[in-house]
Amino acid sequence: MARRGNLMSVRHDIKVLDCTIRDGGLCNNFEFSDEFVRELYKTNVKCGVDYMEFGYKASRALFNEEEHGKWKFCEEEDLRAIVGDNISDMKISVMADVGRCDYKTDFLPKEESVIDMVRVACYIHQIPAAIEMIEYFHELGYETTCNIMAISQANDAQIDEALSMLAKSNVNVIYLVDSYGSLYPENAGDLIKKYLKAVEDTNKQIGFHAHNNQNLAFANTIETLSYGVSYLDTTALGMGRGAGNCATELLLGFLKNPKYSLYSLLTFIEKYMKPLRAEVEWGFDLQYMFTGQLNRHPREAIAFTDEKRTDYCEFYKGLLEND
Amino acid sequence: MARRGNLMSVRHDIKVLDCTIRDGGLCNNFEFSDEFVRELYKTNVKCGVDYMEFGYKASRALFNEEEHGKWKFCEEEDLRAIVGDNISDMKISVMADVGRCDYKTDFLPKEESVIDMVRVACYIHQIPAAIEMIEYFHELGYETTCNIMAISQANDAQIDEALSMLAKSNVNVIYLVDSYGSLYPENAGDLIKKYLKAVEDTNKQIGFHAHNNQNLAFANTIETLSYGVSYLDTTALGMGRGAGNCATELLLGFLKNPKYSLYSLLTFIEKYMKPLRAEVEWGFDLQYMFTGQLNRHPREAIAFTDEKRTDYCEFYKGLLEND
Repeated sequence: MARRGNLMSVRHDIKVLDCTIRDGGLCNNFEFSDEFVRELYKTNVKCGVDYMEFGYKASRALFNEEEHGKWKFCEEEDLRAIVGDNISDMKISVMADVGRCDYKTDFLPKEESVIDMVRVACYIHQIPAAIEMIEYFHELGYETTCNIMAISQANDAQIDEALSMLAKSNVNVIYLVDSYGSLYPENAGDLIKKYLKAVEDTNKQIGFHAHNNQNLAFANTIETLSYGVSYLDTTALGMGRGAGNCATELLLGFLKNPKYSLYSLLTFIEKYMKPLRAEVEWGFDLQYMFTGQLNRHPREAIAFTDEKRTDYCEFYKGLLEND
Repeated sequence: MARRGNLMSVRHDIKVLDCTIRDGGLCNNFEFSDEFVRELYKTNVKCGVDYMEFGYKASRALFNEEEHGKWKFCEEEDLRAIVGDNISDMKISVMADVGRCDYKTDFLPKEESVIDMVRVACYIHQIPAAIEMIEYFHELGYETTCNIMAISQANDAQIDEALSMLAKSNVNVIYLVDSYGSLYPENAGDLIKKYLKAVEDTNKQIGFHAHNNQNLAFANTIETLSYGVSYLDTTALGMGRGAGNCATELLLGFLKNPKYSLYSLLTFIEKYMKPLRAEVEWGFDLQYMFTGQLNRHPREAIAFTDEKRTDYCEFYKGLLEND
């Protein structure tokens, strides 16, 4: 499969999706101030970002509302307090996890909501459940994605079957999610070709969500984009769980479409992200590199970070013993 | 040109070259303690690193010895104070800049020196001068490389001519040097195929030296390696001028040859690099991203860092006005 376009060309199918509040919220329990979220919203509009994800629609039966910031639940009134009727060209998305979302009660019909797109996140064995949710959201009138997480631990047969099932569904976008930041550009490229092939006779698009455990989030994003991925997840200053995500500023500086602009984002980073970074930890460091190299969930690396440990060698030996 | 090997295979032609003291020395004026250099030497030996670069052989007529740490000059006695006769399997290199090195007086014949390899660094218009030096070092008995810097600002005709001249010389290794950290894996891959093609009928090898301005140092290193690059420059914790280099720990964790081991390096990083990082600044940040994206020398970004500025947007606007 050849690359689409080249390093100078504009690809009009590209959509940049900022998920700072959603993936970054995993670092600070979704406790962003309204000012922060409103300024990020205005910034994304000015920068030409195509979608902004505000958080999760998590089940209030499973998660106590008092123990989490409001962007874990993304209630309609909270969204509207930030975006009004969202008269901008930028669309709004929320994420719904399979098994952790009361989707039959917590979503309004699209015409009553400022939400444009629901992204259904699942592990590969949950594809049937994800499709049930996707069809429900489709009926309500939303755009939908299926974000298949932890893809580096799925096998080829599972991936083929999942893609074949999704290709027959009403989903709009299928995402490859490198949850553990363990993919190298070469495997990410090979995998994405499989995704692109699975939807070539449909009007579905492919997306990519990176993690930066091996400092490859941006590299994997532009590698997969070069083969035809259209939906690209980024976060301001790479804020996201553990090692974080592909930084919006890296991607906007790379894309050649003049609709994208860095200026407003730089002002936002200066005023909001750098101060936040002084309080909340995220980003590439050795402990995340280890879990990425070993293709493992970053939970032990997150605990190592939270405990402010610096005994990298002991930690690494411990990881290998657990294997 | 197809990739050589795959993500599981061992490539016996690969040589890892640690240039922490040399490129990292550009961050702290080469003022490393003897303990630091000695421990790094022992660490590199234990980790299976193939070459360790100790610094520059800079002209004492051009640079005052009292104003720089000793690794800017790499005198034989200073090297021997660290490595003795270097009875390890690891080889020792130094860098000699075209026009800034008194090469005819400052090098001993190989049999009297612990230095194994001299790396001649030049800009593309200095290739004839570089070749004269290379032939001199070859006569003295050293292995040689030619590190063509700032390659992202050279044009195709210049590169073709330079490679053709070097292919006829006695140089052992030709390096592509992404001085400005402006290459994407796609261009780095295209360029490196040109280098590999130029030496395919010789027994010369190709090397790659990355900078991390766009967080692509490791990605570009493994992309070029996949096409056949053998000599790979790295530094501990990515220490190097401005945004730094490809981190040794990332590369050693990627390579499949069991001769490479991370453990000792992790202990060294814990004990020496992390404390050093608290005193000396290097590594990916927005100001370096801008100069990388704009394919420019990082000097303004280094000044911005030294002045502890955080007005990223103003700085970026200023860069564009200078263009």
